[in-house]
Amino acid sequence: MSEEKKLSRETFINGAATVLGSVVILGKAGKAFAQSSKKAGKYVLSKGYAAKNKSGKLSKWSFERRELGDDDVLIDIKFSGICHSDIHQMRGHWGPQQYPQVPGHEIAGVVISVGKNVTKFKTGDHAGVGCMVDSCGTCESCKAGEEQHCDNNATLFTYGYPDKTSPSGITQGGYSSNIVVKEHFVIRIPKSMRLQDAAPLLCAGITTYSPLVKSNLKKGDKVGIAGIGGLGHIAIKLAVAKGVEVYAFTTTKSKVEDILSFGAKEAIYVDSLEKLKAYNKTLDYMISTIPYNYNLGAYASLVKPYGSFTQVGVPVGGELTLNNFAFIFNRVNYNGSLIGGIPQTQEIVDFCAKNKIYPQIELITANEINQAWEKVVNKEARYRFVIDTSTI
Amino acid sequence: MSEEKKLSRETFINGAATVLGSVVILGKAGKAFAQSSKKAGKYVLSKGYAAKNKSGKLSKWSFERRELGDDDVLIDIKFSGICHSDIHQMRGHWGPQQYPQVPGHEIAGVVISVGKNVTKFKTGDHAGVGCMVDSCGTCESCKAGEEQHCDNNATLFTYGYPDKTSPSGITQGGYSSNIVVKEHFVIRIPKSMRLQDAAPLLCAGITTYSPLVKSNLKKGDKVGIAGIGGLGHIAIKLAVAKGVEVYAFTTTKSKVEDILSFGAKEAIYVDSLEKLKAYNKTLDYMISTIPYNYNLGAYASLVKPYGSFTQVGVPVGGELTLNNFAFIFNRVNYNGSLIGGIPQTQEIVDFCAKNKIYPQIELITANEINQAWEKVVNKEARYRFVIDTSTI
Repeated sequence: MSEEKKLSRETFINGAATVLGSVVILGKAGKAFAQSSKKAGKYVLSKGYAAKNKSGKLSKWSFERRELGDDDVLIDIKFSGICHSDIHQMRGHWGPQQYPQVPGHEIAGVVISVGKNVTKFKTGDHAGVGCMVDSCGTCESCKAGEEQHCDNNATLFTYGYPDKTSPSGITQGGYSSNIVVKEHFVIRIPKSMRLQDAAPLLCAGITTYSPLVKSNLKKGDKVGIAGIGGLGHIAIKLAVAKGVEVYAFTTTKSKVEDILSFGAKEAIYVDSLEKLKAYNKTLDYMISTIPYNYNLGAYASLVKPYGSFTQVGVPVGGELTLNNFAFIFNRVNYNGSLIGGIPQTQEIVDFCAKNKIYPQIELITANEINQAWEKVVNKEARYRFVIDTSTI
Repeated sequence: MSEEKKLSRETFINGAATVLGSVVILGKAGKAFAQSSKKAGKYVLSKGYAAKNKSGKLSKWSFERRELGDDDVLIDIKFSGICHSDIHQMRGHWGPQQYPQVPGHEIAGVVISVGKNVTKFKTGDHAGVGCMVDSCGTCESCKAGEEQHCDNNATLFTYGYPDKTSPSGITQGGYSSNIVVKEHFVIRIPKSMRLQDAAPLLCAGITTYSPLVKSNLKKGDKVGIAGIGGLGHIAIKLAVAKGVEVYAFTTTKSKVEDILSFGAKEAIYVDSLEKLKAYNKTLDYMISTIPYNYNLGAYASLVKPYGSFTQVGVPVGGELTLNNFAFIFNRVNYNGSLIGGIPQTQEIVDFCAKNKIYPQIELITANEINQAWEKVVNKEARYRFVIDTSTI
């Protein structure tokens, strides 16, 4: 991979100078585009909804994807979920972006063509793509099925990342009619499950499933879930299916009934931090999906001493304020978690198909995307918008 | 304990509204003083150096301590260490304070009187007092020797905490001539160790010893220590004595030689965060003593994935900025640690006496305290100032 991308990734990792990193992305992308324009005419034509600038307003855009390689699968996208990350990234909350950029990393569709080396898929299969589309494949992390943590910093995220093979110079996501993806990064979707129900599992699902599974919970353990949106509502269903007692914390009163219907033991409406106190030191584990800066200490203190608290929501600029008075007293381990590897993503799709666990979705047409984004920001999604991409 | 103190403690714990908590402390303290003034004449006379306002400038102050109770020990203080916490608290960095307030929680001296129930000490014994002087004594945490985490929120810290038994209404610390402390909270100091060397173990020592021991390190493991001041330099010596390889990170070039002399494997002068990159994901464990907001993500990322990083320094207002981009990628567990319990404090004093581990101290007279504080803030301490309290 390029030095430039390494720089970009590391600046993110160090939580500093994201502006520098992204400016470098821009330079690189332009170069890649210039180098590969001779191939025009062989590219796969695609149409999508793209952000054209940091207003993040999406509009139609026709673009090209790389030609189908020997290891690639061409997927006719049927449905694409809307994730809060799409909004953060398009609006530049996580650093400047190259535009036009097509967001979307909860992709479900039908395989319509496969490269000559592909063995796992045939045309007509149902297939999904999540948050990443490539990695080195040879390092320890990749071999261990943690491609999102590629030791060679070669994880290629599904949209907005410098990609020499992409005619636009960056990866372009799933709010679009089709996608070309290396076979290894394509997830099998059992036909017993509707494609629109599978899509949100590929980010919202795996992002909460992975830390839940890692936390080695026992049946009957008490698990807190804070932030009941796209991720949180699936997290409740997954945790309940794993046999734990779920305590769900929401700042939206109208979600309380839904939360109970998802199987939570208790739904706590947090209109004041005072509401949290009754749960101090009572939980065995907790996940927060809250995508904005909030009182981390107050929530983390609900976990029993020496337990763990996982933050999967990434706020504006990535920044959270951590009060160390809270942490020296609560003795809780704070950690983050980034989606999950490809084998585990396959595992959750199979787990949900087998156990009939489906996200609660609202299907929208492409011309409703901008409006849906506003609803996500205003906490009005119930609980995952999924775009019917046939309407693009 | 009073509702007011609970409130104060919880506001700290939740990392919010510390102003409210401390204002309440002021009200309570005045009341306690009024109630107990009839006992004047029986109190133990003491003289110390106190902050009179949030400038934090210390000056002489004569005050009274409670009369010796049946379970109490009266210690003639010989030496008192200067901790960065003293400065933070007197200057109001952790919330408003009641003044006059005598700081100091690294106290070493000689027992000159004991209450009738005292069995662990006799006059003439060497004794120390650290960061706390009382707790409920009956809860699970207290019984487990974690008095600093008293489940009834009754931990009484050594200075500035509402204390009905104190004529001034709050606890008063060790920059003073004597102290009256419940036997359980007094640490035995072996006579083989100089009192001035023992003093810094009672906060700087135990604060780093406790998480080091909890982290279950094996001989040869790589341990990072960031911030090589009073706490950090003792942490190096303790970790080396426990058989691990120490990587010490300092922003002060002139400390490099000292650090190597303390036994560190490497001393890394961090004049730029770039210097950290070579150590990314190489350490088995890391402690940070840095008492100001800093790039937490960049340092925590030096620990191997799924390892732990302990922050013992508490910055202004307790607040640290945590970038969750760093934590979703580095997979490190962040936690805080608050000193250590009484049994473990005794353990470190005995461990250091046995292994001849002594802090590197600089003895000062009482009239040099204000100047020494400036040196601590300016990172000029080498490495712990200890006040010869006979000069008060």
